[in-house]
Amino acid sequence: MSTASFGAQSVVDALVESGVTTFFANPGTSEIHLVSAIDRNPNARAVLCLFEGVATGAADGYARATGRPAAVLLHLGPGLANGLANLHNARKARSPMVVVVGEHASNHLAYDTPLKSDLDALAGYAAKAVFHMQPGDDLAAISRNAAALAVTAPCGPVIIVANADVMWSLPGGKPRGLAQPAHRNVDTPDLPPQQALDFLRGERSAVLLGGDALCAEGISLADSLAQATGSALLVETFNGRHERGEGIPHVDRLPYFREAALDKLASVDRLLLVGSRAPVAFFGSVEGSSVLTRPDAQLLATAETQSPLAMLRRMVALLSKIPAPRLEERKELEAPVGPLTPKAIWAVVNRLMPEGAIVSDESGVTSVGADEAMRGARRHAWLNLTGGSIGQGLPAGSGAAVGAPDAQVLVFHGDGGAMYTVQALWTQARERSKVVNVIFRNDRYAILDYEVKRHGLGVLGEKGASMFSLADPSLDWVSMAQAMGVKASSVATAEEFAAAFEEALATEGPVLIEARVGSGKRSR
Amino acid sequence: MSTASFGAQSVVDALVESGVTTFFANPGTSEIHLVSAIDRNPNARAVLCLFEGVATGAADGYARATGRPAAVLLHLGPGLANGLANLHNARKARSPMVVVVGEHASNHLAYDTPLKSDLDALAGYAAKAVFHMQPGDDLAAISRNAAALAVTAPCGPVIIVANADVMWSLPGGKPRGLAQPAHRNVDTPDLPPQQALDFLRGERSAVLLGGDALCAEGISLADSLAQATGSALLVETFNGRHERGEGIPHVDRLPYFREAALDKLASVDRLLLVGSRAPVAFFGSVEGSSVLTRPDAQLLATAETQSPLAMLRRMVALLSKIPAPRLEERKELEAPVGPLTPKAIWAVVNRLMPEGAIVSDESGVTSVGADEAMRGARRHAWLNLTGGSIGQGLPAGSGAAVGAPDAQVLVFHGDGGAMYTVQALWTQARERSKVVNVIFRNDRYAILDYEVKRHGLGVLGEKGASMFSLADPSLDWVSMAQAMGVKASSVATAEEFAAAFEEALATEGPVLIEARVGSGKRSR
Ligand SMILES: Cc1ncc(C[n+]2csc(CCOP(=O)(O)OP(=O)(O)O)c2C)c(N)n1
Ligand SMILES: Cc1ncc(C[n+]2csc(CCOP(=O)(O)OP(=O)(O)O)c2C)c(N)n1
Repeated sequence: MSTASFGAQSVVDALVESGVTTFFANPGTSEIHLVSAIDRNPNARAVLCLFEGVATGAADGYARATGRPAAVLLHLGPGLANGLANLHNARKARSPMVVVVGEHASNHLAYDTPLKSDLDALAGYAAKAVFHMQPGDDLAAISRNAAALAVTAPCGPVIIVANADVMWSLPGGKPRGLAQPAHRNVDTPDLPPQQALDFLRGERSAVLLGGDALCAEGISLADSLAQATGSALLVETFNGRHERGEGIPHVDRLPYFREAALDKLASVDRLLLVGSRAPVAFFGSVEGSSVLTRPDAQLLATAETQSPLAMLRRMVALLSKIPAPRLEERKELEAPVGPLTPKAIWAVVNRLMPEGAIVSDESGVTSVGADEAMRGARRHAWLNLTGGSIGQGLPAGSGAAVGAPDAQVLVFHGDGGAMYTVQALWTQARERSKVVNVIFRNDRYAILDYEVKRHGLGVLGEKGASMFSLADPSLDWVSMAQAMGVKASSVATAEEFAAAFEEALATEGPVLIEARVGSGKRSR
Repeated sequence: MSTASFGAQSVVDALVESGVTTFFANPGTSEIHLVSAIDRNPNARAVLCLFEGVATGAADGYARATGRPAAVLLHLGPGLANGLANLHNARKARSPMVVVVGEHASNHLAYDTPLKSDLDALAGYAAKAVFHMQPGDDLAAISRNAAALAVTAPCGPVIIVANADVMWSLPGGKPRGLAQPAHRNVDTPDLPPQQALDFLRGERSAVLLGGDALCAEGISLADSLAQATGSALLVETFNGRHERGEGIPHVDRLPYFREAALDKLASVDRLLLVGSRAPVAFFGSVEGSSVLTRPDAQLLATAETQSPLAMLRRMVALLSKIPAPRLEERKELEAPVGPLTPKAIWAVVNRLMPEGAIVSDESGVTSVGADEAMRGARRHAWLNLTGGSIGQGLPAGSGAAVGAPDAQVLVFHGDGGAMYTVQALWTQARERSKVVNVIFRNDRYAILDYEVKRHGLGVLGEKGASMFSLADPSLDWVSMAQAMGVKASSVATAEEFAAAFEEALATEGPVLIEARVGSGKRSR
């Protein structure tokens, strides 16, 4: 077979030409032609991931770090299944990516073979759109279309189902793929800026920001607007990317716990949603409604297809006088001493985190106090767990480092969540990524202890409590990191953490710090 | 809340009463009442798994080791997503299990929350049936029904979707759940034994065995039948459980590679499928048809709802004279010396594997020669990767050890596949399981090198080859095991392997042996 003579090459070449050049890959036999095509395209980059959830999470992190989509290469239904949880998180973050999933040759699908599965049932689960390819189709056009759709607001993952026979055959010229993808969003009209501004000028108004409004420019614009209209300003609880720190106005996040969020929104009569979703509790509750705004509050929202940042620009342009945004100043916290509390941890990060850092955060209960400490830190971008499916933090950090090799990437992670996609450490080592991973070892799914209390279930017995316990045996994160080629150390005091963090920032390649924040004892 | 006063307790108690007593669990907030219910039921056992694919794979291994279903507890759509790949393998193995998946409270599902997802799209992917529960339903009856359906031929995983509000409310008495589950198999009539026997008496006939026919009794019966009718005997390539060794007739497996399988079936005119599927290639191929039997061959199959073992008993009962089955004798191979080749590895296993061992096999290219060496080994049960989704071996071995604590469990695993669900090692340590894990470290997805050749794609360049390479950095399996509390050693010669294997068998609790079978160099 000569170069470019088979379908897979058309797909890969078209994606690369569309600017989708990095492939986070975990391939198998059915993707062998796609592997060969990536091999033959000098501008395609291949990043091997040892589990599919790492590949999808890394593409999400890449998108959040760069604003551009990466590609993901997966093996049939089961490979897609393994990648779904982080695709779910990516969809909620509105991260663009192009997921190419191999599928059996069309005539092989009639048979009950081991790897035969209902791939289509999965594809719709977390993708914005699903593209199928038939023999004779214009595969390059379909691929370009997929890449374009991924970055059309609302951005998100799109899936290309690549049957093996289509990949190994010559592509044709049928433009069928340019037509409707399987899932297409309905067009909605833009919210007019003047209407939004008038709305805000009413009493007791507030703006809830989300999406690309959370860049330095967007937050500054929003702060000017808030001052001009006398509105409060909030950001969503879990954001794909939130720029913060020195030189950017501080905005509170909507609290996670229902009780606190209700409190925060109690005084809001008019809420403008700019790229954000209507505030709803994370989980339903015995106590009642999931809605966090008052029943009589008015909500007004931008369209899903509208850029929140562009909306803010247009609204500010309507102001006769633009108040200067209240930019945060660098406020260095004092060096902490003694026990390794959350407060001590975030103080160290406040002191040492370099300008332009990208933070992939899944720090669980240890996150208490982080927002306040980061307020006066050097300017950084903070990536949250967006879909509640734990195991996003390490992959997203890994992908961010591939996309933004000059930035310092920091991963803050609960030990429980870190285990789901721990294979990401290997990809960091393979790519010599500039990542410092801090694992908060409390030997527990600590958040779930709170949930037992909040649900009035009393104190769990030994057996119930063991279902949240990582203490028997304790995980040894230093060995874990070293097993995958990542340098590591373990710390138990504030001073040790500060020293290890400083050294890690000065080290080439990825580093892991095991931060022993808990005794492993059950918290009551 | 008092004991048994909420829905979750009805579900857990009914499952336990139905004999489903072990819960492989990875819970979250939406399953907090189920956790409490397991805690309160003294006969329920909780086995924490640090990733959902470990939980589903372990329940599969438990079923294969015991013939009985375990339960799995998962968190919402994303938890189910993470468990799907090994559910796929379990479905193909026809392993019974009851998967309880939490879902948001019914009235919370209306909102676009982080963890909102289309759980139902996933549930049908790999489950035999999906049960939903409404407030007021007789939850105990639904749960009993689910447990019963899991063990009704064809066995398989069933899913119970447990909305949080149904779990925290009082159960009612509505018997709705006893009606049709979402997916139900059509009833098919049994194949009459006399018809099957007459079919086999024709020229050039063969029997292909699968399912529960592959126990010692079933294989002996099949061997008598084969002798009486002059038929050849084969077993499927990838079996859920295959009993072999001393005291059991040897039966060849249908080869994995298309070319070899076609060869094997070339002389078969009449093929009787007893609990097996029609022979089809694993992957489709450029060369042509997926079907492995000759186009003019006749196939006759038992019904899916028919027990293969019972069928064999009934067929043998029709014979006027029953030939004695040709039982294998113990044939101890010579102690190997020198390089750690597959041949050397299987010779060591032949010599040392204790009677009654359960083997969870995902050994990849290292499997060459295993079947021949196991022929004269002590009696054992061999569990294959059934659905082609790698990452089954460690979890299945872990679950088998929970289900059959007196048996020695052996896991043989490629290093690539072992990474997908490596968290299983921790569960082995937690349960002090009697498992010896042998990881074949060749620092490569070696099978995929063959596939490149078989597809005529020439030699991959550096980049393409790097997509199959685990060599940069190499994984250190000794550190990996120790990180999760499992004792480990590394070996590079036949003698070292024999010594380590012998020592591992004498050790309490789980052990891992890193067998350095390859140089990490690319095989050409
Ligand atoms: C894929 C997935 N599985 C399970 C859960 C349920 N869950 C939510 S938080 C949590 C424990 C997190 O533990 P850790 O990361 O150590 O943080 P900690 O609570 O100790 O701060 C679990 C299991 C989930 N959210 N997503
Ligand atoms: C879930 C899933 N992802 C990817 C694949 C594709 N695949 C098949 S075999 C293989 C490599 C297996 O490597 P290893 O376990 O080391 O065995 P070896 O080939 O080296 O013997 C891969 C990635 C698969 N079958 N299932």
